Amino acid sequence: MASEKAVPMNEAVTRGDAAGIRSATGRLLSWFLRAMGGVAVRCELWNGDVVEGGQGEPVATVKVKDATTLLRVVYDSELEFGEAYSDGRIEVTGDLVGLMEAIYRAPAHPLAARFLRRGLKRSANTHARSRDNVHRHYDLGNEFYRLWLDREMLYTCAYFPTPGASLEEAQIAKMEHVCRKVDLRPGDRVVEAGCGWGSLALYMARVKGATVRAFNISKEQIAYARERARREGLEGRVEFVEDDYRNVRGRYDVFMSVGMLEHVGPENYRELGRVIDSSLEAHGRGLIHTIGRNRPEALNAWIAKRIFPGAYPPTLREMMEIFEPVNLSVLDVENLRLHYASTARHWLDRYLAHVGEVRRMFDERFARAWELYLSGTVAAFTSATLELFQVAFARAMHNEMPWTRAHLYES
Amino acid sequence: MASEKAVPMNEAVTRGDAAGIRSATGRLLSWFLRAMGGVAVRCELWNGDVVEGGQGEPVATVKVKDATTLLRVVYDSELEFGEAYSDGRIEVTGDLVGLMEAIYRAPAHPLAARFLRRGLKRSANTHARSRDNVHRHYDLGNEFYRLWLDREMLYTCAYFPTPGASLEEAQIAKMEHVCRKVDLRPGDRVVEAGCGWGSLALYMARVKGATVRAFNISKEQIAYARERARREGLEGRVEFVEDDYRNVRGRYDVFMSVGMLEHVGPENYRELGRVIDSSLEAHGRGLIHTIGRNRPEALNAWIAKRIFPGAYPPTLREMMEIFEPVNLSVLDVENLRLHYASTARHWLDRYLAHVGEVRRMFDERFARAWELYLSGTVAAFTSATLELFQVAFARAMHNEMPWTRAHLYES
Repeated sequence: MASEKAVPMNEAVTRGDAAGIRSATGRLLSWFLRAMGGVAVRCELWNGDVVEGGQGEPVATVKVKDATTLLRVVYDSELEFGEAYSDGRIEVTGDLVGLMEAIYRAPAHPLAARFLRRGLKRSANTHARSRDNVHRHYDLGNEFYRLWLDREMLYTCAYFPTPGASLEEAQIAKMEHVCRKVDLRPGDRVVEAGCGWGSLALYMARVKGATVRAFNISKEQIAYARERARREGLEGRVEFVEDDYRNVRGRYDVFMSVGMLEHVGPENYRELGRVIDSSLEAHGRGLIHTIGRNRPEALNAWIAKRIFPGAYPPTLREMMEIFEPVNLSVLDVENLRLHYASTARHWLDRYLAHVGEVRRMFDERFARAWELYLSGTVAAFTSATLELFQVAFARAMHNEMPWTRAHLYES
Repeated sequence: MASEKAVPMNEAVTRGDAAGIRSATGRLLSWFLRAMGGVAVRCELWNGDVVEGGQGEPVATVKVKDATTLLRVVYDSELEFGEAYSDGRIEVTGDLVGLMEAIYRAPAHPLAARFLRRGLKRSANTHARSRDNVHRHYDLGNEFYRLWLDREMLYTCAYFPTPGASLEEAQIAKMEHVCRKVDLRPGDRVVEAGCGWGSLALYMARVKGATVRAFNISKEQIAYARERARREGLEGRVEFVEDDYRNVRGRYDVFMSVGMLEHVGPENYRELGRVIDSSLEAHGRGLIHTIGRNRPEALNAWIAKRIFPGAYPPTLREMMEIFEPVNLSVLDVENLRLHYASTARHWLDRYLAHVGEVRRMFDERFARAWELYLSGTVAAFTSATLELFQVAFARAMHNEMPWTRAHLYES
C-alpha cells in the first residue's frame, strides 16, 4: 500500500497533547494514544478533531466514524479495533502493516499494557471444541485459500533459503528442511499430526520414500488431500485420516507436526507428549513446528474471537511440557520468526491482489477482517510479538542421528 | 581399555538368582543387581561368592573387597560406589566406561530408581559458596589439566566437524562455531561469563577482532589467562576479571558463556537473566553452552560431593527461566550430546596415558577418582543421562541476525 502524507496540522490537531482539541472524545483519544506508548498515527474523528500520537511522521491515518466506536476501542482496544475495522467503522489509509507494527512495538504504559492486552478467556480444547474451532477456520473453502496460498497450499511458515526466494520455492524448501531435520529415510513410517491440505505428507512419500499416516480434523482439507493422493497415485503410501491427534495409534519411526500445536492448547501438551511417546519406535524422532512466544501471553483477543478460536502460541518453556515428562531429547530448535514475516507478506500481497474475489465469495466485512489479520500477522512477526519455532527431537537414547546439522545446508 | 572375558561359571555363580550363593551378602547383591535393572556385570566378593547380573556377556568384573563396602554400596550406591572405587575397596577389570553405560542404561525398578538415585541436597550458590566450589575443582593446578586437555586448555564440550577430527581441531571448531552463532563481528564488545583458561576470549579478540571482558572466579585460571594475553600481545583487547558473573557491569554487543551455567544453580537463573538483560545493547545477542538434562534430576551424588560441588545441569525448560522473564528471544538450540561423549573419551584416553604423573602430583585415591569421573562422563553422554545444549539468543526485536544458519557450515 502507498503511504499517505500527513496533512498539515490545523488548530484542532494535537500531538499527544489535549490542548486545542474541541471535544471530550478527542481529549480521551489523546490520552489513550499516550497510554499506548506514543504510536505515530494520525487520527481523524467524525467531529473534525484530529489527534496525532507519538513522534515523527504518522505511519497511517485512522478515521474513526462515530463516538461509540471510539469509546469501545478505548475500552477494549485489542478486540474492538478489529471489530470496527471489519465493519468499516474505522478506516485506515496509509501503511496498515506499519500501523500494526507501530502498535506492537510501542512501549505501552505498564498499567495500560495490562488493560490493553487482556486477551479472551480460553476454554480447554476438548475433542468436540477442537473440531469446531478447526472447522471455523480451515473449512472456509479451498477456493478461498487457493487465492493467496502457494501452489502446494501450505498454510504455515515457509523457509526462504535466501530472502529473495519465491513463496513457491520457500514452501518446498520448508518441506525439505523439516524432512532433513528428522533424518527421514526411504521406508520410514511417519505419523503426521495436523496435515493441512496434505502437501507435506505427499512430499514425504513422493520425494523421501516414506509411508505416511496423516491426521486432520478439517473435513475440507482431508477431502482435498485424499483427492490429491489419488491423482498422484500415492494412495498406497499416504493415508489421510479424518481424526484428532489424540486418537493416533500404532508405532512409527517419525512423528511430524507442522502448524498444529497452535491449536492444541497447553492443557493438552502432556497428553500430546504421551501420544508421541506411545507412537514412536525406540529409534524414533520427530519435529514440531509452531508459532510461539518469548513470554507467555494470551492470543490477541480479536484473533481469538474472529480468526483462530481456541488457539494459543506457546513459549519454549511451555512446549517442554510435551517432551520432558516422557524423556524425549530436544536435538534442535530453530527460530524462523523473520521467515514467517516474509511468508505472511507474500500471502498479504496475493490476498490484496484477489480481494475483489474474496468480497464476492464472502462479503466486505469478511474481506476487511482477513486483510487486517494478514497485515497483523506480518507485523506480529517483524515486531517479535510472535516467534516461529521448529523443535526437532528424538528418543533419548537414539545415538544414530546425523553427526552435525551440516546436511541441512547441502544443496 | 581391553574388555576381559568372563571366567567360566562355577557353582557359586548365579545370574540374578540367589540360589547357589553361599553367603547372605551374596544373596543381597543378587537382589540389588536385579533392582538396578539387570546390569550385565560379574561381581566377585571377598568371600569367594560370584554373582552375575543381567543377560549376556558381563561388560566388566567388579571385585568387592569387604562386607562393609558392599552394604554401603547397596545402601547408597550412587555415592558409595565412587567412594569405594577411589579407595580401591572396589576394583573393576574390563571396560569401566562400558560398566558405567550399562548402569546408566539399565531400566532400574521404579521404586529402586528413587532409592538408587537420591542425589545430594544442593545448597544455594551464594557468591562465597560459588568461589569455594569453583576453587575446589578448577584450582587443582594448571599442570594437572595440561596433562589431558587440548593445547588450548578448553575444559568444555568440543565440536567435531567430523567424528574423526582431533580434539585440538574440535576445540578450535567449537570456538568458531559459537562465534558464528552469535554473529560476532570486528569491533564487537563481548562479555564472557566463566572464561576458563581464557582461550575463547583470546580467540574472539585475535580471530574475530572483538574486545572482550572475561569473568572467572578461579584464581589459577585467571592468572594463566592474563599471562597468556600478555604473551600474545592481546592485553589491550582482552581484560580478564577475577569476579563473579553477578558483578558484570557495562553494556556489550554479545554475552557469551561456555560451561559456566552448570555452576550457577537454578536458584540464580532469574538473576543471570537480569544480568544479561542489563548488559546487552539493543542489538545484543548471546550464547549459553551448558551440560543439561532431558528431565530434572539431581546431579549424581558422588560427582556432587567429590568432583563438582554445587553443580546442577538444567533441562531446557529450566533454562528458559533465564530468557523468558526478560523477553530474550531464543534463536537456536543445538544438542551436542555425542560430541561431549567424544570429547570426554579423548580426555579419558589422555588421562590414562598420564595417570602415573597424576599419582605423583596427588595420590592413588585422587587418580582413581578422576579415572572414574572421566569414564562416567563418557558413559553419561553416550547413555543420554546428560545432554549438551548450546542456546543462542538475542534481544527480541533484533532483526539483523543472519537469515539462515547456513553460514555456520561454510568452510
